[in-house]
Amino acid sequence: MSSNYRNFRNSVPWLILFLEAVFIALFYFLFSDKDLSFVSYPDFQDVNHMMIFGFGFFLTFLKRYGFSSTGFNLLIIVLGVQCSALMELLSDFRLKMPQEDGLTKITKATVSVTAVVISTGAVLGKTNPVQLVLMTVVEMIFFHISKWINSIFLQVPDNSSMMHVHLFGAYFGLAVSSCCSEPSPRSEKNASTPKSDLLSMLGTLFLWVFWPSFNSVLSMGENWKVIYNTYIALAVSAVTAFTFSAMTTKDGKFRMAHIHSAVLAGGVTLSYTDHRIQYPWIAMILGLLASVITILGSSCLQRCLNPALKIHDSSGVHFTFGFPAVLGALAEVILIAVENE
Amino acid sequence: MSSNYRNFRNSVPWLILFLEAVFIALFYFLFSDKDLSFVSYPDFQDVNHMMIFGFGFFLTFLKRYGFSSTGFNLLIIVLGVQCSALMELLSDFRLKMPQEDGLTKITKATVSVTAVVISTGAVLGKTNPVQLVLMTVVEMIFFHISKWINSIFLQVPDNSSMMHVHLFGAYFGLAVSSCCSEPSPRSEKNASTPKSDLLSMLGTLFLWVFWPSFNSVLSMGENWKVIYNTYIALAVSAVTAFTFSAMTTKDGKFRMAHIHSAVLAGGVTLSYTDHRIQYPWIAMILGLLASVITILGSSCLQRCLNPALKIHDSSGVHFTFGFPAVLGALAEVILIAVENE
Amino acid sequence: MSSNYRNFRNSVPWLILFLEAVFIALFYFLFSDKDLSFVSYPDFQDVNHMMIFGFGFFLTFLKRYGFSSTGFNLLIIVLGVQCSALMELLSDFRLKMPQEDGLTKITKATVSVTAVVISTGAVLGKTNPVQLVLMTVVEMIFFHISKWINSIFLQVPDNSSMMHVHLFGAYFGLAVSSCCSEPSPRSEKNASTPKSDLLSMLGTLFLWVFWPSFNSVLSMGENWKVIYNTYIALAVSAVTAFTFSAMTTKDGKFRMAHIHSAVLAGGVTLSYTDHRIQYPWIAMILGLLASVITILGSSCLQRCLNPALKIHDSSGVHFTFGFPAVLGALAEVILIAVENE
Repeated sequence: MSSNYRNFRNSVPWLILFLEAVFIALFYFLFSDKDLSFVSYPDFQDVNHMMIFGFGFFLTFLKRYGFSSTGFNLLIIVLGVQCSALMELLSDFRLKMPQEDGLTKITKATVSVTAVVISTGAVLGKTNPVQLVLMTVVEMIFFHISKWINSIFLQVPDNSSMMHVHLFGAYFGLAVSSCCSEPSPRSEKNASTPKSDLLSMLGTLFLWVFWPSFNSVLSMGENWKVIYNTYIALAVSAVTAFTFSAMTTKDGKFRMAHIHSAVLAGGVTLSYTDHRIQYPWIAMILGLLASVITILGSSCLQRCLNPALKIHDSSGVHFTFGFPAVLGALAEVILIAVENE
Repeated sequence: MSSNYRNFRNSVPWLILFLEAVFIALFYFLFSDKDLSFVSYPDFQDVNHMMIFGFGFFLTFLKRYGFSSTGFNLLIIVLGVQCSALMELLSDFRLKMPQEDGLTKITKATVSVTAVVISTGAVLGKTNPVQLVLMTVVEMIFFHISKWINSIFLQVPDNSSMMHVHLFGAYFGLAVSSCCSEPSPRSEKNASTPKSDLLSMLGTLFLWVFWPSFNSVLSMGENWKVIYNTYIALAVSAVTAFTFSAMTTKDGKFRMAHIHSAVLAGGVTLSYTDHRIQYPWIAMILGLLASVITILGSSCLQRCLNPALKIHDSSGVHFTFGFPAVLGALAEVILIAVENE
Repeated sequence: MSSNYRNFRNSVPWLILFLEAVFIALFYFLFSDKDLSFVSYPDFQDVNHMMIFGFGFFLTFLKRYGFSSTGFNLLIIVLGVQCSALMELLSDFRLKMPQEDGLTKITKATVSVTAVVISTGAVLGKTNPVQLVLMTVVEMIFFHISKWINSIFLQVPDNSSMMHVHLFGAYFGLAVSSCCSEPSPRSEKNASTPKSDLLSMLGTLFLWVFWPSFNSVLSMGENWKVIYNTYIALAVSAVTAFTFSAMTTKDGKFRMAHIHSAVLAGGVTLSYTDHRIQYPWIAMILGLLASVITILGSSCLQRCLNPALKIHDSSGVHFTFGFPAVLGALAEVILIAVENE
């Protein structure tokens, strides 16, 4: 470890402390009060639970990251939530929109932070803590700019203006990852053990269980339809993941890595379109397609595309979150076109 | 592994894919829409959480089943939920009853799937994936027939017509288990390790925490009474489990296997009678009795009955779910008799 | 193991069974019914979840206590809840107050039991099961006396009369601990392993996620403000914990033990003042201060105070729960003084 890096490392706590002081100061000036919340507390609690446990364990699949992934995940989420709540306050302040109540603010902030957590999955094992903290702040700023473009120029309604969060997170992470130097592929850092695999499966299950809450938390009104569609798409995704995993392996056994990523594909795809789907069979077919492209994408990318483009994607966020989100965006366009005919 | 079995094994994905196609097609024809749900989303979420985590880890007590039990558990639940939702749709369609909304449908389906998951506990280690998938479909069909008999012939009100789910699951599982060949008792497949024991305890805790939600989710109206009665019965069961576990072992130490099964006994027993109990002391006494018969049953069965009847019950579903459910059914009969006097 | 101790040990089940019989008998005489609950079921479920999982795993950090800590935790909670519900019934009966409904009763009882669970953390590794069971009953009686003093003499409103539960638990535990003989510090009982550290982190995360529910469950009316303030204080605590942990260690790395205790400090501090705080920046500053005194306290206590006072505090409840609760009490006094000016 060079002395240069050591000095760099010692700056981490001061950097974070400085950020925290800025947050407190800005909250002092900007905050104002509203009373009623349209987000119910159990819904927020589900999303919070999913972020801390789901993504915390989803990323423990590398042997050396047991504690640090759950720990850093917490640090990134709490920093990101404060940062995102501030960006929201600033944009409301500039646009002279009415302020929202506290619970809605932190729920929206928690949903935005998903982007950072997904990006972290792509760069895990190649970045140091300082870089992760900086990435959190920078990514939150860019995400809010993209959300602002969505609202102002594309006229996306407010409750779905942040549903591109998986897409944004996956490709932002890949962009950052392609700038970092690739670790030597044989290094012990990339190894996984049965125990870390089990923890990772635990994370997947948390994400699977709470995904309907995530998709429905910001959808005012037609809550139950969103929940039902997301659940049924996730169920079909899970079935398809097991099926295709057994088909694409030579010995006909289920492979953990496939299941790990493909069971969630339906939920990611539905995040755009869930409030627009009238019949469950549409959600089921989207869930099936999402799961198939995730598994096919997983084997294609690792064999051909990634070596060609020199992208190193530690936990496969490209096919886990990127591909299904693109499919969801396409489905949204088609559904709007059909509706308008 | 014989080539015969290998061919058989290769048919798993095609079988599942065929099932999934049938589900999507039937959903296309049968589905119609209703708007208001009498099941609240947090209640459904609790039941879903309990199924995925509780039963997923409850069955990891065998060393070799860490991943496969949580994974298969997910596969069985999502297949079972779709299958059960279809059976429900079909029976509503034939009886020309008004359709229920989506959330109520999947909540009922999730409750029914408990039967399959409990049966899986009895046959774990003796069946291959194809058999498990087939068992899921067959058991769901039989369960809906039994539910239909309950509603039509026994005039059981709709909200408690599926509360025999533990009883059905336990004895269906034992019946299937007695048809399978018994594995050699010394095989490494039946070993447990401290780590798998801890995971299994985790599963028990999930089930314990969410059992009041499970019992109350379909009981319209008198929700809080059901929750209170179930909680207090579970509390007494837990105390009794520790007490009797220390009494029946020679060195006076608590034995994990006892606690693992007996803390849940009160919840199983109350699943029938919870809406009928007026005073908490009745629930407390039922919880105490349930826990006692589970622990006594556990030592009797393993010593005398199972070898005699040649039943091999991998995770003890007979005394964990079977006995307390029988006690619950008896208590229900007595309570109705007392009420009518 | 002396024969004396063995006889003593054999009395555990009879002691517990006797207690349980007393509980059932008293419930038979005292219980009466009310219908509406001001505690919503999802809120109770969150608190229950937090007690069973959060504290269950928070205490698994010692290698030898994997199963026994989660198991005993369950036993202590269910005994404590019944004991506390009875004390509540008795005091309502004597004061001729109107009775509360079942759900409110068990929610209040669950909140009180936190005191016992925190005390257990201080004496872990030095007590046998009989002592723990006796401590549970005695501590619940003393806690209800202290609560009664709060209500009658100090005129604390009913919904915050039990918010000194962390303070009470920490110092009661330390008092009991100073009476026990200290175990030899090199004994294997105090060792921790990476795996037990990860489980312990899991417990911390459960506590962190559900702390807003804990603080808000008994606060009638201004629910959302309490939730928002607690969340933001916990977020700042978590950031500060990471920062100061890196500052106080020589190599600039995060230390698990610090993070383990300091991320929760904000929640403990806010348990008194959460309904009185009007602006989020006050909550943020309290969260920051709480986290700082926890980390500083942790290094001071272990070096100077504990050896001097001959206190042995197994899991550091003094600085994890004691110090932040004292800070919270001070903040409450200051806020009331400012309001009255």
